Order: sequence, then structure tokens, then C-alpha cells
Amino acid sequence: MLTLTPAPTPPPEMVSGDTMEGLWLEEGRVSFCTDLPRPVPPAGEALVRVRLAGICGTDLAMTRGYFAYEGIPGHEFVGEVVQAPQDPALVGTRVVGTINAACGSCDTCAGGMPGHCPSRTVLGIQGRPGALARYLCLPAGNLHRVSDSMPDEVAVFCELLAAALQVQQQVTIRPTDRVLVVGAGNLGQLLARTLALTGCDLTVVARHASQRDLLLQAGIATLEPDRVGLCNFDFVLEASGSPSGFELALQAVRPRGTIVLKSTYPEPLSLQTGRIVVDEISIVCSRCGPFVPALRLLQDRVDPTPLIQDRLPLSEGERAFELAGRPGALKVLLAPTA
Amino acid sequence: MLTLTPAPTPPPEMVSGDTMEGLWLEEGRVSFCTDLPRPVPPAGEALVRVRLAGICGTDLAMTRGYFAYEGIPGHEFVGEVVQAPQDPALVGTRVVGTINAACGSCDTCAGGMPGHCPSRTVLGIQGRPGALARYLCLPAGNLHRVSDSMPDEVAVFCELLAAALQVQQQVTIRPTDRVLVVGAGNLGQLLARTLALTGCDLTVVARHASQRDLLLQAGIATLEPDRVGLCNFDFVLEASGSPSGFELALQAVRPRGTIVLKSTYPEPLSLQTGRIVVDEISIVCSRCGPFVPALRLLQDRVDPTPLIQDRLPLSEGERAFELAGRPGALKVLLAPTA
Repeated sequence: MLTLTPAPTPPPEMVSGDTMEGLWLEEGRVSFCTDLPRPVPPAGEALVRVRLAGICGTDLAMTRGYFAYEGIPGHEFVGEVVQAPQDPALVGTRVVGTINAACGSCDTCAGGMPGHCPSRTVLGIQGRPGALARYLCLPAGNLHRVSDSMPDEVAVFCELLAAALQVQQQVTIRPTDRVLVVGAGNLGQLLARTLALTGCDLTVVARHASQRDLLLQAGIATLEPDRVGLCNFDFVLEASGSPSGFELALQAVRPRGTIVLKSTYPEPLSLQTGRIVVDEISIVCSRCGPFVPALRLLQDRVDPTPLIQDRLPLSEGERAFELAGRPGALKVLLAPTA
Repeated sequence: MLTLTPAPTPPPEMVSGDTMEGLWLEEGRVSFCTDLPRPVPPAGEALVRVRLAGICGTDLAMTRGYFAYEGIPGHEFVGEVVQAPQDPALVGTRVVGTINAACGSCDTCAGGMPGHCPSRTVLGIQGRPGALARYLCLPAGNLHRVSDSMPDEVAVFCELLAAALQVQQQVTIRPTDRVLVVGAGNLGQLLARTLALTGCDLTVVARHASQRDLLLQAGIATLEPDRVGLCNFDFVLEASGSPSGFELALQAVRPRGTIVLKSTYPEPLSLQTGRIVVDEISIVCSRCGPFVPALRLLQDRVDPTPLIQDRLPLSEGERAFELAGRPGALKVLLAPTA
């Protein structure tokens, strides 16, 4: 039953020689460096020049020490392929990329779940230098071409929108369902925008007035956290990043309802099994999602650009992290200088 | 969005007048009494003479103070209808009964979930005298007629077998799935016997040799808890009643796999969200199930009688609870004396 997984493709090496600018994360601290070694793509991988990258909640969590990663952070990007030895047609195209680089040959990969490959590396998160730099490497198969008509400022949201769409890969949201999204940061905002397309009866719990304003502009109903009360939502999507958000989800979900957990918390979550078993609650955990439908929706159905709060040069990366970490902050983008 | 639920049908009163024998649970202690008031069925309810009743894990949990209930315990029974003013054809029939008595008119009931009615009473568990007595009352609509060919010793397992079948009301177990049941007490044994009928690749974690022997006799593969190791089950059903069983389930489930939680634990469960979100685990909580298919399977597809460990008269109820509470114990039945 157990499978020995073959050695995965080695992640790109940070070889000496050419250098580049980028952010470096070490012991929870982000620094801008101009002398990071420029990565060299191993066989099957492409070298991508980053055009625009985003700071995500996971990046912030790493600076807070929630999990260990030392290296170049960042996994939300749009870039241009500059080397693709095994797929020359890619060179010069603008791309986004899925962040999990799998071995491609284990049972998990064969089972259609490369994102869960036990030998995977993950861009800017696990064993692979990330996107907050001038260049990155990814397997050519991870890259998705961006249409010429899509601005960088839209394409850079592809990874996060895909994570929002993953919910609908996992559960069936029916047009008649009552759905609550808890949390109105970047992920909550995009979850709300994708769910609104189903026609469901949607409400978003948003702590900050600026977040509520953005949602109202998108025609989405909002509630302040202390106004939720007892209610009977068919689905509650927890994207607040805070255990208090999970408590709210438990309070708001109906018997036999489903909580979709998009958040991870630094401390263990304490669950009263009596309540959830008697009420037959389901908890569906959800992570990365599909890029192709995300690109389709970004083309003309979902506009993420109102979420852009700041756009800074990579050299101001430390300040960008500080801005992105403020309560109520939305998307902070970083661009390597030309 | 909030609904005021109408006052439910009042549960049967324990009126003075005729008395009966039965068990009484108070402050976690079970006592046999001969002078309990015989219940009088309110409108819409039937009076049932109990022929045989079982002690369940929930009953044991109440004696251990896991939740507060004072009154006659017990919810697994087969009996004979002696009064049914609004459904006289029921009188004289042998019946089993679903344990949740709902209001029938709130949104939850209208939504097809009477077992989750917020105003419900629950036989021997919440606001309604239970089955470990000579008589009980239930709404006539809760009763299901038992075929003449089915022995009491089989029919008394209907409630527990229905709880096992509830899993397959909630999730789709495919014939090619790898399924692990954690726990081989009464519920684990019946879960295994229903899952074996799907053709799935089934293994049961059983702590006690006697439990493993029973499963092997039923053609079901077993594992001792410390032999589980890392593995990749599509579904893990946790029915051990112990948080260590949940830990085992987390260890055994594959990425994107499902843990079905049939256990409740007295203490809060501590969950590392990082692990379950990254691996996109689903946790489906599961409780009471459908009686009609349970009766069909008990007719000729599932034989629960090897689980019967002891059968005692109701007057030995205190000893019966002691026997049922021993490690590795299986089903202890109690029969009121004729």
C-alpha cells in the first residue's frame, strides 16, 4: 500500500555567476538584496522574468514565523518566459504559473493530484525560490499563457482567484443556497466575487469599512462580525485567517451544512465534537485551485483591480510587507524595476 | 432569516397512577426502579411495550457525565404497540422507532431534516423518557413495523445499523475506494458490515482480539492500532470514541481524503489546521440514519447477532451497564420481564 516516491526533479539551483535583485526571507525578516544568484532552470523548467508579483497572506504568515521557510518568498506573479530549453515556443510569452512542482510519477501524481505530491516543491513556500525577485524558475508544464488583452494587474491575481475557485471544485454551490463568507481580505473578496456568479444568496462578514465598501461596490451584501447572530447558512467559507472566524462559521452554519476552511491558524483549533457531530456539520479544507478557469473569469467576469491597494518597486519590499500586514489591508503588488 | 419555531408536541408525561419498572439515570448513576410512572402518550403518539432494548455508547457516555440527562435512558429498542389512538392499526404490531421527535412545522422539519429540528426531543437522551423501561412513548410517525420473520435480537440493532448507513447517505463510497474504520465496538462492527457490502477495499482497526475475531469471521480485514502506519485511505471512519482514534484517522487518510466522524469526545478536539488545509482533508460528521434501509439489510444481508455479548433482565440494569462499559465490550441487551 505504501509507495516509494522517486526523487523529484531538483528545484532550480541558486548558482553563483549572474546575480539579480529580490527579497530574501530569513528568520521571519524580509530584506531587499541586489546580489541574489540568478536561478538556472533544471531540465524541464523555464526561466521567467517576473513582471509583477503579489504579497499573500501565506507570505505574511511566514514573516510571523508560522512556518519555517528561508529563501525568496512569493508565489503570486505574472512574468515573461526568457528561457525554456524544452519548449522554445514559450519564450517571449507572458505567463502565470501554478505553484506546486510535482515529481509526476508517484501514485499521488498518477491519481491526478500533483498539487499533493509528497515530493513536491512549492514556489516561495517549500524548497523552491519564489516570485518576489527579478527571475524565477518553474516546470514548463506549470505555466499558463496570459492573453495579450489581459493587463499584468489582472493576471497577477490568477493564483488567488484559482484558490477561490477551488471551493467550487470541491463542493456544489447551488443557486438557491445561502452562503456566508467570513473574512473580506484579498481571498474573501475574490471568494465573494466568484460565488456571486452562481446566483446564490451571498453575504460576506467584513470587519473593516473599506472592505465592506469594496464589496458593496461589487453588489455584494455585507455584515459586520458582531451582527451575524444565529442563522442557518448552507455553506460558510472561512477565509478570515483567525480562529474567531471559525467560531463565527460554526455559529452561522445550519445543521448538515458545510464549512469550507480556507484559513490556517498558527495555534491548534479547538473543536467541540458534540456540537459538530450532533449537527452533522461537514468541514471541507481547501487550498490551491485551477488556473485555466481563473484566467477565463479574469478575462471579463471578475475584476480584481479594485483590490489593489499599493504598487511598489521590489526595492521597497520591506515596506510593502509592512503595508500588506496592516489590519484591513488589501493587495500590495511589487514590480522589479525594468 | 431567523425562524421562530412553534412549540413542539409536548413529550409524554410521567403521570402518577400506573407504575412500571425501568432504569433511572441521575447524576451519572443508573438504578433499577419498580415504581416509575407509566407514560401516557400525548396526541399523535403511541404507547409501546418494550420487548428488548440495547445499551449504546451514548448511554455509557451519559453515566460518565459527558452530558446532562436525568430520566429513563435508552434509545435502542424493539417493542409492541399497545396504544395508538390516532393510528389503531398499529396496535399489536412489533415496531422499532427513530429517536428524534420533531415539531414537524419549523423550517428545519420542512427542509426534510426532522432529526435536526431545534425543538426536538430525543428518546432517552433529551427531554423524553427512554427505552430502558417496560413502556415508552414515541410519535406514531417515528415507528417502523418489523416483519414477523425478524427476531427481536435482530430488530433491536436497527437504530445502530441506521446510524452506520447514515455514512452512505452523506458520502459516496465507491467500490474501488480504500476505506479504514477506526474502532471495532458495536458501531465500528456494523459500519464494517455495511461497508463490506459496497465491495470497497476495507480494513478495520480493532484494539481487542475478540473484536478482530468477530470481524475475521465476517470476512473483514483487521489491523491493530499500532500497525496502521502511514497510508493513503480514501475514507477513514472514526468510530473509536477516543481522540487517539481521530489522530489515527488523520495519519491514515490520503490528501483530499475524507474522515467521517461518528465519535464525539468529552474534551475538545485539537486540530492542526495547517495539516488538514494543505492536504485538503474533509471531515464529515455523521449521526442518526435511515431505518427503512436498515430493516431491509437486517432481513438478510447483515447479521448483527454475533455482536450480542450479554442479555439480562431489566432488573439487572446496573450490572448490564457495568458489563457494557468494559474495554472491548460489545452489545448488552436488556429485556423487561414478562
